Amino acid sequence: MRSSMTVVVLAVLSLFVASCGGPAPKTAQTPQAGLPEDALRIAQARGLTPDDITAALKTYVPSGKLDEYILFASGGHSGQVLVIGVPSMRLLKVIGVFTPEPWQGYGYGEKGTMEVLAGGTLNGKPILWGDTHHPALSETNGEYDGQFLFINDKANARLAVIDLRDFETKQILKNPNAISDHGGGFVTPNTEYVIEGPQYATPLGLEYAPLNEYKEKYRGVITFWAFDRARGRVDPARSFQIELPPYWQDLCDSGKRVSDGWVFCNSFNSEMATGGIEEGNPPFEAGTAKNEMDYLHIINWKRAEEILQNGQYETINGMRVIRLKTAAQSGILFFAPEPKSPHGVDVTPGGEYIVVGGKLDPHVTVYSFEKIQKAVAAGTSERDPYGVPVLKLEDVVEAQVELGLGPLHTVYDEKGYGYTSMFLDSAVAKWSLGGPYRKDGKEPWKLVEKLPVHYNIGHIAAAEGDTVSPDGKYVVALNKWSVDRFAPVGPLHPQNFQLIDISGEKMQLLYDMPIGLGEPHYAQMIKADKLKPFEVYPEVGWNAVKMSKDPNAAEPGRERVEVRFENGRRIVEIWMTAVRSHFYPERITVKKGDHVIWHITNIERARDASHSFALGGYNIHMSLEPGETGTVEFDADQSGVFTFYCAEFCSALHLEMVGYFLVEP
Amino acid sequence: MRSSMTVVVLAVLSLFVASCGGPAPKTAQTPQAGLPEDALRIAQARGLTPDDITAALKTYVPSGKLDEYILFASGGHSGQVLVIGVPSMRLLKVIGVFTPEPWQGYGYGEKGTMEVLAGGTLNGKPILWGDTHHPALSETNGEYDGQFLFINDKANARLAVIDLRDFETKQILKNPNAISDHGGGFVTPNTEYVIEGPQYATPLGLEYAPLNEYKEKYRGVITFWAFDRARGRVDPARSFQIELPPYWQDLCDSGKRVSDGWVFCNSFNSEMATGGIEEGNPPFEAGTAKNEMDYLHIINWKRAEEILQNGQYETINGMRVIRLKTAAQSGILFFAPEPKSPHGVDVTPGGEYIVVGGKLDPHVTVYSFEKIQKAVAAGTSERDPYGVPVLKLEDVVEAQVELGLGPLHTVYDEKGYGYTSMFLDSAVAKWSLGGPYRKDGKEPWKLVEKLPVHYNIGHIAAAEGDTVSPDGKYVVALNKWSVDRFAPVGPLHPQNFQLIDISGEKMQLLYDMPIGLGEPHYAQMIKADKLKPFEVYPEVGWNAVKMSKDPNAAEPGRERVEVRFENGRRIVEIWMTAVRSHFYPERITVKKGDHVIWHITNIERARDASHSFALGGYNIHMSLEPGETGTVEFDADQSGVFTFYCAEFCSALHLEMVGYFLVEP
Repeated sequence: MRSSMTVVVLAVLSLFVASCGGPAPKTAQTPQAGLPEDALRIAQARGLTPDDITAALKTYVPSGKLDEYILFASGGHSGQVLVIGVPSMRLLKVIGVFTPEPWQGYGYGEKGTMEVLAGGTLNGKPILWGDTHHPALSETNGEYDGQFLFINDKANARLAVIDLRDFETKQILKNPNAISDHGGGFVTPNTEYVIEGPQYATPLGLEYAPLNEYKEKYRGVITFWAFDRARGRVDPARSFQIELPPYWQDLCDSGKRVSDGWVFCNSFNSEMATGGIEEGNPPFEAGTAKNEMDYLHIINWKRAEEILQNGQYETINGMRVIRLKTAAQSGILFFAPEPKSPHGVDVTPGGEYIVVGGKLDPHVTVYSFEKIQKAVAAGTSERDPYGVPVLKLEDVVEAQVELGLGPLHTVYDEKGYGYTSMFLDSAVAKWSLGGPYRKDGKEPWKLVEKLPVHYNIGHIAAAEGDTVSPDGKYVVALNKWSVDRFAPVGPLHPQNFQLIDISGEKMQLLYDMPIGLGEPHYAQMIKADKLKPFEVYPEVGWNAVKMSKDPNAAEPGRERVEVRFENGRRIVEIWMTAVRSHFYPERITVKKGDHVIWHITNIERARDASHSFALGGYNIHMSLEPGETGTVEFDADQSGVFTFYCAEFCSALHLEMVGYFLVEP
Repeated sequence: MRSSMTVVVLAVLSLFVASCGGPAPKTAQTPQAGLPEDALRIAQARGLTPDDITAALKTYVPSGKLDEYILFASGGHSGQVLVIGVPSMRLLKVIGVFTPEPWQGYGYGEKGTMEVLAGGTLNGKPILWGDTHHPALSETNGEYDGQFLFINDKANARLAVIDLRDFETKQILKNPNAISDHGGGFVTPNTEYVIEGPQYATPLGLEYAPLNEYKEKYRGVITFWAFDRARGRVDPARSFQIELPPYWQDLCDSGKRVSDGWVFCNSFNSEMATGGIEEGNPPFEAGTAKNEMDYLHIINWKRAEEILQNGQYETINGMRVIRLKTAAQSGILFFAPEPKSPHGVDVTPGGEYIVVGGKLDPHVTVYSFEKIQKAVAAGTSERDPYGVPVLKLEDVVEAQVELGLGPLHTVYDEKGYGYTSMFLDSAVAKWSLGGPYRKDGKEPWKLVEKLPVHYNIGHIAAAEGDTVSPDGKYVVALNKWSVDRFAPVGPLHPQNFQLIDISGEKMQLLYDMPIGLGEPHYAQMIKADKLKPFEVYPEVGWNAVKMSKDPNAAEPGRERVEVRFENGRRIVEIWMTAVRSHFYPERITVKKGDHVIWHITNIERARDASHSFALGGYNIHMSLEPGETGTVEFDADQSGVFTFYCAEFCSALHLEMVGYFLVEP
């Protein structure tokens, strides 16, 4: 004890010196006034353990200092995306995606955003929420490039595109042939495609068929949405789908480096159970878990591109679909057995291995891409009932690592370890990879450590942990239950993100972050300095959806109101500016029944000088960032005196930034 | 230096002893392994100053420990309420209020919540967002009692009631006679009334009148919503309004203790400006700021109750309204001059003083309730243009305290200090009260300290800081701009809540919390142990809106589907249960065009065992907490095969908790 005491004293002394010689402390507290003494007194008074103290110091980000990583997490059935700083675990932003969000002016009348949301309608009916699951950052050569983010909606089989220049949703696409998805939002290593894997099988093309025709008519379908990076949009015309058996495909992951050109998906209902507990059938939870093995789907998407070139597809609801028979016979689709209703499928950084999380099996099963290639080349006579070639498990498995109960999903560090979420164990399992990741050949494919988490971890995220070059440092456990971790807020509990330090030999739990606004499923963590968002929009008059100058941008001095008639109806069109602290013009008078088109340009150039446009009584709100032009269009169907005002506290005279909207009876 | 060194060494030693003798550290790290040494190394490596270190230790709440205070903040134009733990500044929950929120199943088909939102329609048209400003916790004897929370919607003049047993919105009320409000959500000391103050004047009763009839026809109106605590609802029949001149009333606060029975509101447009910059008029920001003085509104609500008893009111749009003339002549309404477009009006803990924040004046002006009473008793011959008695400033002012630029809003501690937000200075000003708060009589009404904040602080909140017995300890600065404080997330920046330690002689800035999902205006901070929310609903089959057993609760073993005809139309009614990990029944088949009524009961009793009901393609989602029964009702207007599933990750077999909804063509 004595020797470590000495070290402590020296260390304390060095801190004193540092604080005396360094920059002056920020606040008015007396410099060097026994601050470490204060610190210890505070720690003791608050009952902090030594681990708590180090955790506090590892996660605290002082005012004005920035977080090192940014975590993009799905918001689950909130329909949104969460943006979180790491290591502080502070929620920096919630991005409106499938659910309208008025603070951002997303879906409350602003035309561009209404059009984005309209992309997600089904049969013309709006669907104004989503169940976001798996965010995918755009990649270049298998590295996050910080340009775009994609996210799926499991509940309605949709995909959204977010532009990371302004953290706003630019496109929503309804899958024309599927009703639910899950393994969605995964990109190929150069973001050629965004993959939307299916989930619950339904008749292809949204047709009707009864459940007794399940095997014949129900299908899975994996979608390859072609991404046009220059336009920042998915191009449906270049996209395609592959029809799959009705096995309830689950998560997917793209091959990378040596396995680039391939995609891997799990499945968990090779039983083709159709439920019906009320009719004496096993419920889905039992019926889908009978078989010891399900099928890992091994898909060659570069081969699929060739098949498309050859015209071997059908167009269903406007989408090119490679039929199951073609896929099975053309070297596009292969199966390998996988134990038992697995969840995660996670390709190692170099692309050599595919790690499958057992869920109902205590192992992760590690498949070798090299062995898969050999088995494919050797051929197999085994087929599933739909004619898909089935590779032999023993021909393609590299290792099985026993981790414990409920292994779900695996991420990687830079030192050759995998970190797997263990739902039933409520733990993170750290285990060693083998092959090229263990140069010394010692102790490959072995459980190293398990850290308890609180509670029921679903997915897991690591710093750049699913790219070709993970950073290590941090893992976040996305726990589904919090139970007793936080001050109670009623029967609907927050989830719990736990930050874990993985830089040392042992994992250390650093922080509990409540998630009380959605239920994230997956997250990706990018180095913060890879993101280069706009601070303000590049030009005054910017259309944030089109990402270009808006032809209806109003210029100061050229604001105006025009009245015209179209088909006998009065159209009132307004070109308005907003600046601290007034709108120009301030009085708008129309007649009841007029159609109103209202363009507003925020002419500010200062960072953070947002204005908004709140129109009482009309369900209209726009957020206008510096330089932004927004448009609302509506019928003045209620007479009376209404006020429009800036709902952003933009200046000391913010309450005075108001105007009257008079609708004559 | 040497002596403080010794203290440090002793303190370090004592920590060692504490960690050796205390409970074992939580993680697997070797006990007493030089942890303080680690701490110092970490602090140095991360560039933490001594102040940063103490701030980190004061705010860190270890896993499983609970926050001491709960901060309820409005979400501004998100339309929601934020629930935040203090001192950790972690967001514990976002409560859906005026904006539908699918994670909570609020407004996505669940009948009870749809009815709550329907309370906020205007002329039958839904308004699905709000601009929440001022949350008000229910009070008993001027203390927060932890039972209810009220919040206004400035954009549409509405009020919402949240039950803190389950943190859910139970009622939304549209003000029948106003189009915008601001000074809303303030309670009287026993929550007899929830006060909704007006903002922008419009013709009373939502009538139309042109702006050139402003002085004659435009009015402010303050609403006293009578609260029925036993029912947990506002009772519109017992509520009333008082007509006010069109002066743009701003914030309000209730008198307490000696001033119980009174309410005080600011105003900022005694000029009765109507804007019109485009016509050569001064813009509102200038027109409303011409006069050196506006009017503090002094309202005797107990006297108003007597006047109502006498029948001296008119009923307008179903609401009892005391007309301006009656109010002016009956001892209900008085004015006192106040400099110049002020913002906050904040009654001191004992009710003796009313502190008015200058906004465009560098002072806070302190009014004495005793002097007001004397002046009222003495009578005044001065009247405003509407006949309201105007008390003389010198008769009612106790003090003016010069604080600096942009004083907005004041809260209090337990030691006799006020803390005022300074928008233009970007600072918190601490100043001494006088009178009974300064027993020694020394240095009353004096600026003591100013702490810079980042940036542009609007409101401010202190621990129980607007009750009759503030706690001191913490102040939160609700800063409107963050500019450079956080990792960039695009042109729409988060706001910045800064936590300040006020327990010591000097204020210390502890923490920056980004608010990237709304723009809070005001917040209240309650001792966490005053809240006693349900962990699970009290009975299986609970209706969360009605807060009682639902007659349509399904019991296990008695689930069923009934088909009947009404007016020649097929009605399919389902009584279903949900439990880990299946719905019962799992297959629902209807015909296109059927009307579907679907009741689901979560029969779980374990804390955090929520299920949800996601129905793809139908814009339907319910969140069902343990014990809860929810109902959706809709037309099966799309044929095809749809899936319903539990979107809460409730168990390892969560993905298998699914059923088919078949709509025959």
